[in-house]
Amino acid sequence: MNLKIAVLSGDGIGPEVILQAKKALYAISVAYDHEFIFEDALIGATAIDKTRNPLPEQTLNLCLNTDAVLFGAIGNPKYDNNPDAKVRPEQGLLKLRKELGLYANIRPIKPFKNLLDASPIKREVIENVDFVIYRELTGGSYYGEKIVNEEGTFASDICEYSENEINRITHQAFKAAQSRRKKVTLVDKANVLETSRLWRKIVKKIALQYPDVMLECQYIDNVAMQIITDPKQFDIILTENLFGDILSDEACAIMGSIGLMASASIGNNNALFEPIHGSYPRAKGKNIANPIASILSAAMLLEHFGLEKEAKKVYEAVEKAIEYKVVTIDLNPGSRFGTNDVGDFISNVI
Amino acid sequence: MNLKIAVLSGDGIGPEVILQAKKALYAISVAYDHEFIFEDALIGATAIDKTRNPLPEQTLNLCLNTDAVLFGAIGNPKYDNNPDAKVRPEQGLLKLRKELGLYANIRPIKPFKNLLDASPIKREVIENVDFVIYRELTGGSYYGEKIVNEEGTFASDICEYSENEINRITHQAFKAAQSRRKKVTLVDKANVLETSRLWRKIVKKIALQYPDVMLECQYIDNVAMQIITDPKQFDIILTENLFGDILSDEACAIMGSIGLMASASIGNNNALFEPIHGSYPRAKGKNIANPIASILSAAMLLEHFGLEKEAKKVYEAVEKAIEYKVVTIDLNPGSRFGTNDVGDFISNVI
Ligand SMILES: CC(C)[C@H](C(=O)O)[C@@H](O)C(=O)O
Ligand SMILES: CC(C)[C@H](C(=O)O)[C@@H](O)C(=O)O
Repeated sequence: MNLKIAVLSGDGIGPEVILQAKKALYAISVAYDHEFIFEDALIGATAIDKTRNPLPEQTLNLCLNTDAVLFGAIGNPKYDNNPDAKVRPEQGLLKLRKELGLYANIRPIKPFKNLLDASPIKREVIENVDFVIYRELTGGSYYGEKIVNEEGTFASDICEYSENEINRITHQAFKAAQSRRKKVTLVDKANVLETSRLWRKIVKKIALQYPDVMLECQYIDNVAMQIITDPKQFDIILTENLFGDILSDEACAIMGSIGLMASASIGNNNALFEPIHGSYPRAKGKNIANPIASILSAAMLLEHFGLEKEAKKVYEAVEKAIEYKVVTIDLNPGSRFGTNDVGDFISNVI
Repeated sequence: MNLKIAVLSGDGIGPEVILQAKKALYAISVAYDHEFIFEDALIGATAIDKTRNPLPEQTLNLCLNTDAVLFGAIGNPKYDNNPDAKVRPEQGLLKLRKELGLYANIRPIKPFKNLLDASPIKREVIENVDFVIYRELTGGSYYGEKIVNEEGTFASDICEYSENEINRITHQAFKAAQSRRKKVTLVDKANVLETSRLWRKIVKKIALQYPDVMLECQYIDNVAMQIITDPKQFDIILTENLFGDILSDEACAIMGSIGLMASASIGNNNALFEPIHGSYPRAKGKNIANPIASILSAAMLLEHFGLEKEAKKVYEAVEKAIEYKVVTIDLNPGSRFGTNDVGDFISNVI
């Protein structure tokens, strides 16, 4: 297979970890006779520094005309400490998601057998946990109108959802459930929010088209607790943008490290793959960042294009690295292996 | 001391657990020579059934003219499954919070020594955890304008905050930190939401008035993870309404059971005390609900009126019940003790 992949390494540890994902993809291309062509582009704080734009025209055009996007991380503390900054790195990512129509963000939670003890949660609670979060990614309060008055004494954010926005991700979630344990948990706050009640109504209607899948509706506050106390109950979690953001980061506690969590963002014509972790500026350039989340994101890319065998190969190579403790310090405090070593080991195994 | 206490038992297990809190308060009044006068009133689904109003005029008037409100729980599944219901039990609670001006919801997280193993989280992670969530309770998307179009194909919720709303709870949080470990963690989503940026700006300004307290700002997604992976870092968590709702339920995982979590909701002229748990309809009337959250809410009531010794007495009686395993089945699956037994034991110890 021939794939053109845009590489948006971004800020902080982004470039270091994405390099390892590229190595893994290169190893796959050699082993399975594919051709992957990588093209780099600017995004985030790095792009602001060079072009004053967190998502330069050129980057957007490249992404629109490519098969897939491999994304690192964005964010730089110099913008966090300046609430008045009119241009922020995150705007680049948010605009990219919107422009590419990446409405479904998919985040699998399945702890590695050899890392069950790395989690703060007890082994018996997380053993055999296996669920996937389907987070709506181009709506909600991320994109609704924002207001702040001139005196800076009042602000507002609107959370909006339309039937169409809820429909498309809901169908994705139910289809995914059909090839899994056939359960969808809709997470909302329907006892308070109007948008949640709309979600509930529409999702219940769609559920009738999937009689083999069980639908359950739960409140976000309750699920925030249940993900820790009884995570085995979940198969597919379906939720809106901000709730999905919160729950998927929380679920990292099950995996043992945020450095292990991959994600795919899928639209009708485009797809983007990125680790869940942020740009982790303090670790930048230190060769200590965990590249596994990026490498697993590359595996999700392969899977997205039907390259199941290849994706499995990457996943197994990651498992081997974990088994042989070729991991970064987040997983093994005394580890002598750096970002590069882990990436090299994994691509060599492939 | 003379206190007039409005008792709003509400729905589901509300009446059963509130009865135990009243017993504890009665025991305190006898032991310490106080006079507590209880007056019952309707709220929630029970109130809708009898008056079609989740917060009858009479209930509101009673609460406005009383020293404190002891609140049980509200909610009934018959309303959850009907998104078109125009009147819902939750509206009663939300209106009550607003009318009484209860802007600060305070939720302490401090696991009991004898229950460290009841949590799904490892003992070494939660041992000595001791933080308090200050949740803004009368603003945000709970009270902003809600829209749903006639065809039911579009909905929106507005999250709004004003300087004044942020000010008053922020001062409460910093004052609380001064008599504790002197750290406030503001939780927001300032990389996306305008209201979060307003919070950050105002809280940073107020922090200058409390030079002995350290302020830290963190994103909600990150904190949702950190509460599980490293909960000891927190002293006071300050956050807006919905984020506070999510984080405080999540934090129940640390306590071992949601049946242990008490809360106080404080305004300038009124105060309300309630367990965090909901109405738990399936347990109603079965004498299995854990009354400790309600009893600890009564202890927070005592503390609020400066009755420190009395509050401590209640807390110690609860500890004794836990030590002697006089607890409900949520804390000890084989327990032969019911809601009443636990309540009786605790008031006898007092
Ligand atoms: C960086 C930030 C805007 C982003 C989000 O909130 O979506 C991140 O937290 C994520 O989950 O991808
Ligand atoms: C019942 C519900 C409206 C309420 C809330 O969301 O505030 C509850 O979850 C709480 O935390 O007290």
